[in-house]
Amino acid sequence: MRSLKIALAALPLFAATAVSAMPPPLPLEWLADDAAKNDQLAWDFTEGVTTEVGPRLAGSEAEARARTFAVAWLKQHGFANVHVEDFTIPGWERGEARAEIVSPFAQPLTLAALGRSGATPAEGITAEVVRFASFADLQAAPAGSLEGKIAYISNAMEKTQDGSGYGFAGPARWVGPAIAAGKGAVATVIKSIGTDHHRNPHTGGTTFRDVEPIPAAALAVPDAEQLDRVFARAKGKPVTLHLTLTPRSVGPLPSGNVIADIVGTDPSLPPVILACHLDSWDLGTGAIDDGAGCGIIAAAAKQATKSDRPLRTIRLLLAGSEEPGGLGGDAFAKAHGDKPVAVALESDFGADRVWRFKSNFATSNADLHNRIARAVSRFGVSTVTTPAGGGEDIDIAREQKAGVIDLDQDGLRYFDLHHTPDDTLDKVDPAQLRQNVAVWTQVVGILANERGTINPGE
Amino acid sequence: MRSLKIALAALPLFAATAVSAMPPPLPLEWLADDAAKNDQLAWDFTEGVTTEVGPRLAGSEAEARARTFAVAWLKQHGFANVHVEDFTIPGWERGEARAEIVSPFAQPLTLAALGRSGATPAEGITAEVVRFASFADLQAAPAGSLEGKIAYISNAMEKTQDGSGYGFAGPARWVGPAIAAGKGAVATVIKSIGTDHHRNPHTGGTTFRDVEPIPAAALAVPDAEQLDRVFARAKGKPVTLHLTLTPRSVGPLPSGNVIADIVGTDPSLPPVILACHLDSWDLGTGAIDDGAGCGIIAAAAKQATKSDRPLRTIRLLLAGSEEPGGLGGDAFAKAHGDKPVAVALESDFGADRVWRFKSNFATSNADLHNRIARAVSRFGVSTVTTPAGGGEDIDIAREQKAGVIDLDQDGLRYFDLHHTPDDTLDKVDPAQLRQNVAVWTQVVGILANERGTINPGE
Repeated sequence: MRSLKIALAALPLFAATAVSAMPPPLPLEWLADDAAKNDQLAWDFTEGVTTEVGPRLAGSEAEARARTFAVAWLKQHGFANVHVEDFTIPGWERGEARAEIVSPFAQPLTLAALGRSGATPAEGITAEVVRFASFADLQAAPAGSLEGKIAYISNAMEKTQDGSGYGFAGPARWVGPAIAAGKGAVATVIKSIGTDHHRNPHTGGTTFRDVEPIPAAALAVPDAEQLDRVFARAKGKPVTLHLTLTPRSVGPLPSGNVIADIVGTDPSLPPVILACHLDSWDLGTGAIDDGAGCGIIAAAAKQATKSDRPLRTIRLLLAGSEEPGGLGGDAFAKAHGDKPVAVALESDFGADRVWRFKSNFATSNADLHNRIARAVSRFGVSTVTTPAGGGEDIDIAREQKAGVIDLDQDGLRYFDLHHTPDDTLDKVDPAQLRQNVAVWTQVVGILANERGTINPGE
Repeated sequence: MRSLKIALAALPLFAATAVSAMPPPLPLEWLADDAAKNDQLAWDFTEGVTTEVGPRLAGSEAEARARTFAVAWLKQHGFANVHVEDFTIPGWERGEARAEIVSPFAQPLTLAALGRSGATPAEGITAEVVRFASFADLQAAPAGSLEGKIAYISNAMEKTQDGSGYGFAGPARWVGPAIAAGKGAVATVIKSIGTDHHRNPHTGGTTFRDVEPIPAAALAVPDAEQLDRVFARAKGKPVTLHLTLTPRSVGPLPSGNVIADIVGTDPSLPPVILACHLDSWDLGTGAIDDGAGCGIIAAAAKQATKSDRPLRTIRLLLAGSEEPGGLGGDAFAKAHGDKPVAVALESDFGADRVWRFKSNFATSNADLHNRIARAVSRFGVSTVTTPAGGGEDIDIAREQKAGVIDLDQDGLRYFDLHHTPDDTLDKVDPAQLRQNVAVWTQVVGILANERGTINPGE
């Protein structure tokens, strides 16, 4: 065995010089494994934005402070081209939300207005409640049958790893109030679209398309179950509610996307887009929705490029105004849709571990799909050939039929917290957050150094 | 082996007659085992009072409705001498509670006034916050050092099976505000005395003895931890809070104890007292504190006497106004202290399983102590010779040096919910509730048929 001295002496001069000037790049696997153990960046961003800004409703002054925070953080951590792209949105303010059962069993209930809810007069309204055990029951109610009544939709949501319970339960919130309004209801309350049992109602957007908005609110799950019991014990006597909701539409208000790059060595290649959203609902501090998502993508971009510049530019999109309906993603797609992107990924499902990788090129670029799948399997991540769908903030990739990847996170806890006051930093598990960064580091590192087209299509 | 027919023919005539007229009493063990599997009474009472009344603050109109509910329920279930014993209390109303960090990181915080808190002006106060990591740190602060400041006590509570964590953490609430006031503080906020991480503050009483009450409130644990992070990130810059608390003292207000008996066959023997409290804090519906306790004692009295009258009278005390400081227990002791009681037991620690039996006659009446201990061991209940202390509502037994028994409940979840909006029926586990009834049935059945003195003293 040769001595180290002899081995070094045998190296060509230029190589020896290069070694002393710049160490050889570390393998991507090493970087991802290191992130799994040691990443602090994702936590630092998440703690920072949730502590120094806290709740940051779309269009609010707090959302503007979140942009300021993000710009400073990204510059401090060496990102390039850090800037804000402004746009405006129709605004909405929450106002007051109170409800009391008037009869037969007088008591207060805890609830929160849904985004875009209409308002009651300041003194509230009192009306009989008509209970629907399910969304389908509401749909089946005859036209005009809710005239002067408050509709109550009692459908419950189940926990699922993939979050599919949201798809089953969600319509009660998304369009339940509009359907009830169409049948004459003066207001709608729903059982929160959530899987917890705490006195924390789940807000979220609702949509009134062909009908004037009516007051619409979500009861905390324990309060909705209480209302169910009140109906059972009322034994057919009318149940009446006094409801005060004073949200209002305001604006237009300023919002904006924060953009930041790690510039690739080949600017002719379309970039890899990593997305999250910077706004939150106003009840919590937006830790799992979506401070952590922004922390994960920013950390992964840094960790994957820690020892060498990537081939492609990695572009972060910290979108504004996602919660009112993906308005930041729309603005980004509109502003940049003419410039091709290679692939886009979004982190917007909390901070629990990634358990599944999906792409939209499992068949069109099976080699790449399978390389990624093999690379993330050591982190406990499986794969499937069901196409990735992406999220609200990466419309641009879907519109261009570019690559889209989903790194599915464990959703069993997510809807305990989603859109509630309880979405706070203490709900983020640092170890699972680091697993996210590790998986993202691995995937982003592969994508950013992939020369060929990511999604060549069919 | 003789046939059944011959065996029956051999029975004396009077025995055969007695059998056909009245079946022989079922063994107590059978009754307790049956309660463990089938009791519905405890659930029915708990569901009823939490649903038909809901929150029932001491002295409120809702507490009066709880008495009406309890009287009707007890009569319906065959209790004798069901009546209300009125008394009056100094009243307190909650008013509004709001807090916002003004600087350096503007955002709202969730909190609740403590019972007997003073009030801020309606427009609130703005002051710098002085943080104390522990109650001991507050005690050590120099006289006058909090002049014009808001004191924040950040001590955290740990989960313990026996609830002893409350004893360590509680002083921050019980006397922290008074101590801060004595050093010049204009208000006090504490980290909730609780073991959960939800946006539900833990209220509870505080005491101002030699000092004018100041505004005093508990931050939800996530909000207190947020304030801790704000201090860490403020890096020495002042942290200021805008605080609005508008509670007020009112009254005197009416309260009352509900009394009900199962009359024993020997009225000359002192009764067995089973206690709970009917009032609750106003934030939740008082399911674990203490609707379930009343359900447990009422169910056990019925289950233990289902097939035969007891020797001693079993007297239920559903006390009013326990939360402001055991006022119902005081009134009961004052009204009835001259009539001897045999033994008293109180259920006021939630609805989770009984894990330990204690008495104050483990040495003075070891035979009875050991018989009870053996009888409850099949329900997973251990024993110890540490003397039982009893609760707020059974002062009468302590004052008389009568028997006192503790049936200690598992406290690991209790302080997640205690005095919060989250104290609602969904937190009661029906199987553990039945285990409580079974253990109480066993113990009450033994005590009510014990002819000798329960606690003969030393």
